[in-house]
Amino acid sequence: MRRLERALVVADGRTLVSADPATVSWLTGHVPEIEWGPSPFSAPPVVVVDASGLVRIVVSEDETDSLSPDVEPVTFPGFAVEDVDRRSRAIELALSLVDGRVAGEPASLPGALARIELDDVGVELQRARAVKDRDELDAIRSAIAIADKGQAAARSAFAPGVSELELWTSVRAAMETAAGGRLPVLADLVTGPRTADVGGAPGERRADRDDLLLIDLVPRVGAYWADSCATVAHGDVPNLVRDGHAAARAALETVKAAVAPGVRAGDVDAAARVLAEYPHHTGHGVGLTVHEQPRIIPGNEQLLEPGMVIALEPGCYGEGWGVRVEQVVVVTEDGCDVLSGHQLGLYSTT
Amino acid sequence: MRRLERALVVADGRTLVSADPATVSWLTGHVPEIEWGPSPFSAPPVVVVDASGLVRIVVSEDETDSLSPDVEPVTFPGFAVEDVDRRSRAIELALSLVDGRVAGEPASLPGALARIELDDVGVELQRARAVKDRDELDAIRSAIAIADKGQAAARSAFAPGVSELELWTSVRAAMETAAGGRLPVLADLVTGPRTADVGGAPGERRADRDDLLLIDLVPRVGAYWADSCATVAHGDVPNLVRDGHAAARAALETVKAAVAPGVRAGDVDAAARVLAEYPHHTGHGVGLTVHEQPRIIPGNEQLLEPGMVIALEPGCYGEGWGVRVEQVVVVTEDGCDVLSGHQLGLYSTT
Repeated sequence: MRRLERALVVADGRTLVSADPATVSWLTGHVPEIEWGPSPFSAPPVVVVDASGLVRIVVSEDETDSLSPDVEPVTFPGFAVEDVDRRSRAIELALSLVDGRVAGEPASLPGALARIELDDVGVELQRARAVKDRDELDAIRSAIAIADKGQAAARSAFAPGVSELELWTSVRAAMETAAGGRLPVLADLVTGPRTADVGGAPGERRADRDDLLLIDLVPRVGAYWADSCATVAHGDVPNLVRDGHAAARAALETVKAAVAPGVRAGDVDAAARVLAEYPHHTGHGVGLTVHEQPRIIPGNEQLLEPGMVIALEPGCYGEGWGVRVEQVVVVTEDGCDVLSGHQLGLYSTT
Repeated sequence: MRRLERALVVADGRTLVSADPATVSWLTGHVPEIEWGPSPFSAPPVVVVDASGLVRIVVSEDETDSLSPDVEPVTFPGFAVEDVDRRSRAIELALSLVDGRVAGEPASLPGALARIELDDVGVELQRARAVKDRDELDAIRSAIAIADKGQAAARSAFAPGVSELELWTSVRAAMETAAGGRLPVLADLVTGPRTADVGGAPGERRADRDDLLLIDLVPRVGAYWADSCATVAHGDVPNLVRDGHAAARAALETVKAAVAPGVRAGDVDAAARVLAEYPHHTGHGVGLTVHEQPRIIPGNEQLLEPGMVIALEPGCYGEGWGVRVEQVVVVTEDGCDVLSGHQLGLYSTT
């Protein structure tokens, strides 16, 4: 069952309406511009699916390029010399499309659109989005291939004296060159004692001789995100750090072995925490958002299903140091396949 | 009168509520993370100002660092192992703060927050935001200094054979190095015949010997944006292009001379269009958004006031070529001051 069918099952005869960016992209193919925040020449897009399966999107006239061929755009003015209240116009247009009994994601709906009576099916839609279609898997593979390039660039550029921002420039350039254009990228890029903070943005710090680099790269390619993390050492690091890294890698192998259909997300989480200690989740779904269902966290009763894409990222953190390794997997009929291709070794050659 | 006082004048005894990111930042100092889209560990912040002038912001517990000291944060969970519906929690918290008669920006309000009865004062708030306080001017100056660095880097790196993405990497690195960290940047970076399209994102195209580079750089530093544009030639360009560039520069000088308190925005626009022809606005306000009031467009009756910050960007476009020059000015008591410091000449030495 493909995603539109799954959405119609959730809608159960009702009109479906959402302004959640991930739900909108999921049903329409829309790739929102995000790197520079909300555009003054646009408004949050709204998707409306009627009971027959007709998918319509309310979007600016400048943003129809990426839409799937069977999606009907209902547009308001984009970049223009004229003065138009685009947010109000978008809401009016969406209201005109909504009819009969309605289900949707109320917390995502703005203004007068939030005043319509509707049943909240946000949780059901999040669960439906967790299982990926084949074309979604292809898109995620492409994004991961780009993240792999970034990880390779970081590994080759990391050396004593290099600053985090210089590394960041090399890494981003490698990914954008591979993609042929600009990419939104969420990233942790920290060196030395900053690795103990789990993550953080690249800054002016320059690497010392025996420093660690912790780099978590999350590029978006088209509408889909990748995720990846590695920890790299250049010189000598204490045995404690080597042991921590070995523990994190062992935990990663253990969670991958634990992933299979019908397994509870919370049990996958627990399997990793026997081997390594870290103050964050063990993993999370990846797709149209950087963090989605299923969350691999303590106690989560959700059962894994084939087609779910999960980033697994156990780590180990001590006084003045931290390490983390991460791969993305897809749940198969009897286990999981690893989608990530980047190196995980503490040193370049491993 | 500073911005909180101006907001209270707009509120006129009513509680003020908004989830417009610019209004939220304006009243609280909040610097939203934007480069990677909406965070799954946050929700759109909401500002609530009561009639006494108490400013409260509903925001994730991870996002309180940039707030002004007199702003009271009301927080929901941020990055956490636990599963929390942050968007619904944010809406509940904001609802609990709203009391009595309410004014605000309804099109910005999500979910149940949009169901409260309120007077729409969006237009009044946009106008109030157009006049900048001294600290806002300082922030904009800092952002423009960063844009200047980017323009200088583009000018020095532009040469035959360089690709748009390579230029982009140099430019972004120059700005991020100057700022000491990552920056959101909106940019047009096009070469050769692509300049005829007015703008566009950097791609794989490599510059030919006699190409133009059109580069419009819009970095955000802290919560405030800069804006800047220049067009650079390397080899020989046709006289038509040189004349077009001279016309755009003359139009820029003319609009700067036209800017003064009490002048209609539409008249500033008309002054430029006598000298050069272009299919876009002549200018726009800059501040907490990349494009705000006052818009310098045909027919706009809005009167300029001291403290308004305006980007002015006449251009000239022909068959297979385009040029544009842009500076940011602040309206003074008797004219305007130029805030931009980047070179505008078609060749590096001018």
